[in-house]
Amino acid sequence: MLPAEQHRFLDALRALLGTSHVLHLAEDCAPYLTDWRKRYQGRALAVVLPGDAAQVAGVVQLCALHGVGVVPQGGNTGLVGGATPDASGEQIVLSTRRLNRIRSIDPAGGVLVAEAGCVLAAVQQAAAEHGLLFPLSLAAEGSCTIGGNLSTNAGGTAVLRYGNARELCLGLEVVTAQGEVLDALNLLRKNNTGYSLRDLYVGSEGTLGIITAAALKLFAQPAAQITALVAVHDVAAAIGLLGLANARLGCSLTGFELMSAHSLQLVQQHFPQLALPFELPSAWCVLLESSETEGEPQGRARLESLLEMALNDGLIVNAAVAQSLAQSQALWHLRESIPLAQAQEGLNIKHDIGVPLSRMVAFVESTAELVTQALPGARLVVFGHLGDGNLHYNVQAPVGADAARFLAEHQAVCNRIVHDAAVACGGTFSAEHGVGQLKRDDLARYGNPVALAQMRALKQALDPQNLMNPGKMWPG
Amino acid sequence: MLPAEQHRFLDALRALLGTSHVLHLAEDCAPYLTDWRKRYQGRALAVVLPGDAAQVAGVVQLCALHGVGVVPQGGNTGLVGGATPDASGEQIVLSTRRLNRIRSIDPAGGVLVAEAGCVLAAVQQAAAEHGLLFPLSLAAEGSCTIGGNLSTNAGGTAVLRYGNARELCLGLEVVTAQGEVLDALNLLRKNNTGYSLRDLYVGSEGTLGIITAAALKLFAQPAAQITALVAVHDVAAAIGLLGLANARLGCSLTGFELMSAHSLQLVQQHFPQLALPFELPSAWCVLLESSETEGEPQGRARLESLLEMALNDGLIVNAAVAQSLAQSQALWHLRESIPLAQAQEGLNIKHDIGVPLSRMVAFVESTAELVTQALPGARLVVFGHLGDGNLHYNVQAPVGADAARFLAEHQAVCNRIVHDAAVACGGTFSAEHGVGQLKRDDLARYGNPVALAQMRALKQALDPQNLMNPGKMWPG
Repeated sequence: MLPAEQHRFLDALRALLGTSHVLHLAEDCAPYLTDWRKRYQGRALAVVLPGDAAQVAGVVQLCALHGVGVVPQGGNTGLVGGATPDASGEQIVLSTRRLNRIRSIDPAGGVLVAEAGCVLAAVQQAAAEHGLLFPLSLAAEGSCTIGGNLSTNAGGTAVLRYGNARELCLGLEVVTAQGEVLDALNLLRKNNTGYSLRDLYVGSEGTLGIITAAALKLFAQPAAQITALVAVHDVAAAIGLLGLANARLGCSLTGFELMSAHSLQLVQQHFPQLALPFELPSAWCVLLESSETEGEPQGRARLESLLEMALNDGLIVNAAVAQSLAQSQALWHLRESIPLAQAQEGLNIKHDIGVPLSRMVAFVESTAELVTQALPGARLVVFGHLGDGNLHYNVQAPVGADAARFLAEHQAVCNRIVHDAAVACGGTFSAEHGVGQLKRDDLARYGNPVALAQMRALKQALDPQNLMNPGKMWPG
Repeated sequence: MLPAEQHRFLDALRALLGTSHVLHLAEDCAPYLTDWRKRYQGRALAVVLPGDAAQVAGVVQLCALHGVGVVPQGGNTGLVGGATPDASGEQIVLSTRRLNRIRSIDPAGGVLVAEAGCVLAAVQQAAAEHGLLFPLSLAAEGSCTIGGNLSTNAGGTAVLRYGNARELCLGLEVVTAQGEVLDALNLLRKNNTGYSLRDLYVGSEGTLGIITAAALKLFAQPAAQITALVAVHDVAAAIGLLGLANARLGCSLTGFELMSAHSLQLVQQHFPQLALPFELPSAWCVLLESSETEGEPQGRARLESLLEMALNDGLIVNAAVAQSLAQSQALWHLRESIPLAQAQEGLNIKHDIGVPLSRMVAFVESTAELVTQALPGARLVVFGHLGDGNLHYNVQAPVGADAARFLAEHQAVCNRIVHDAAVACGGTFSAEHGVGQLKRDDLARYGNPVALAQMRALKQALDPQNLMNPGKMWPG
């Protein structure tokens, strides 16, 4: 864009949003121009902060007029660079931070309407104030936004029972690539009147339009949540325990996280104040959570009976059931501290694979062999949502190695090994984090050609100017 | 199409599928050319019965070559004429009946892959043989097919707990409008790798492509199901009971059906052998079902304690808890016999509205007044899935009136009153049955213009020749 046009464009943005909501100075823009993991660094014409959907629409209209790409950004906690602009300096970042109102809540109907920039924890809180549960839960919940959660179809720790972000969404308000406000804020559990535009925008990572508000499903708060840390013999035993828990607890089973003993040892090393309830007797642990509508005694009895059965079946080695909310939180804290302990230990190669449960044991065993063969001394830090078939199969540099150099030299090879293995097992290279910039090449490599052609056709149909988050999912 | 081209087209179909799988004689085609309710009567060049996805693709390629519209048909049990060809005689019907294999089942992963023509009951049965539950359940389950269920995003009686057909589907195999096989048979609970083509095809009523197989979610079989028939004071009390049941039973609440006393009286009149467990003391009843993972005694105790609480709160007038599987089935049989009793009573005007629960009382009360004002003597037969905000708000001709004439004269006015009222309450004119031919005008009238424009753009992108089920959802 020529300087004169750029000037006119920025002036028009200022006239629309007010000068203070169009950031232009490097220091003001900086936090919006790099991702949470500091893997990507972009530039932008401006960072804009519209205050309502109409202003978002106005911004998109201006961008359409001037051919400027728009990068939507919520809490900027994504892990694949999906909210970071490219290096051209020709795009703008559209932050949804000011779209932060809870518009309505209908406790009887179990529906809450939140604007896209509401922080996930604020949505949870608004539901809790009415005695209800919004179950989406993930490590970044204190800063990620519901708009980002939906545009990336976030997963987290409650998918097993409540589904991904997609399943928690009844309707959307979206600003289209033409700068129109699409009101699809359906509040109904059932509404079969045409194609599900909602489901097309959910998970589209801002490449089709900008989510500005969402109608979300609420659930009854459980009367009690019982948490246990369980040491299992191996991954096969963990899957056996999962089957037993599904059969015995049914929909009360709300959490089933696998953690390698090595992951927990890293936590102990970097956060020694976080105590394990027992010495680790085997290579794998499970964090199991049951949510009960009756009460704590009934829930505890059911969980203990399950664990006894699993012990008799030879599936588990040791187990500790939390006796208080504080103990339960301490167990979850162990799980949630794994990524932080990894970061303390140094840069590492993250994966977010999904594999059908029937192939999980084969995947874990064969991939460990392949990775350690290719990268001698590399340390596997494996943990994640086993109940959903989703593991963070992370790889840490050998003890004492220069982690940055290890990453630079071996990341591509390591990704290829792990992703090839997951896909060969009928799995995926991205279970919950999405594609963004980081996995664009993976999508091209592993994506089904017919599916990719259809996705391109949809993108072309809804965003023919390629204004919406260009360069994400596939090359711009 | 000129006769010579028609000849060549039919010859090519016969060469592809074998002569016996290309029906042409009027008597062979007849069952495929009218809908279940006999509301629509079409004509067709042929009815074809391909045996696998490759043959479906071949048929679509031939249709693309000759510009012939394809009407996909499963069990032909739809209620909106979505599977009936138009009167031109220029379309073909593609029946999925021969695509009837269960391709695989993974009990540990809780996934079953079924071809589109599998009858729903056969899918349920295949899951049950592995001790698992496929929860989609509706009156037509003995003849409807899973392909039809998915292409219409079927609802039914278990949506409250398990969601619509959409939520039960992990992946699809689809033949595109270009005659390619799209393999999106994802088996994973989490897979964030591009736009959800699955969710675009689910509910698209065959207008974008033809579903040929699906990966379906399975659940643990409940240890016991407890059913109760509950007389409530009014609709507000029914909604109060629903809130209480949600809070007390959580995800064990698997059924919550509202029935007007008048609906049940019709059942008694036409099927006197179906006994009610008590004299109807009020104008509304609820059929409530709880599914328990523990066992029957625990489930019964929980349900009885809930009912006691509801009685103390003044929500309910009387209740009968089934004491055996036979009693439970008898209660469900009452509910399921309402449409049949209505049919016995004569032609009637069916609606399938959805309304947010917070507006349901207002909707039911005001609409009754509007309908009986406009159509004196008309009898309301109201029942349905209150737990999902979805009612079949049906209207029967006055006692002694000529039902066919009543329908011909008043259907349009009656639809308009009921649909206007539902939409005015933030609801929908089609909660679970879809659009098809019957509600094409409603979609045009009530649909959001921005949403309709986007849907048209998607249709144009994926099916530019308008070959897939032309004339459904909107005029061909």
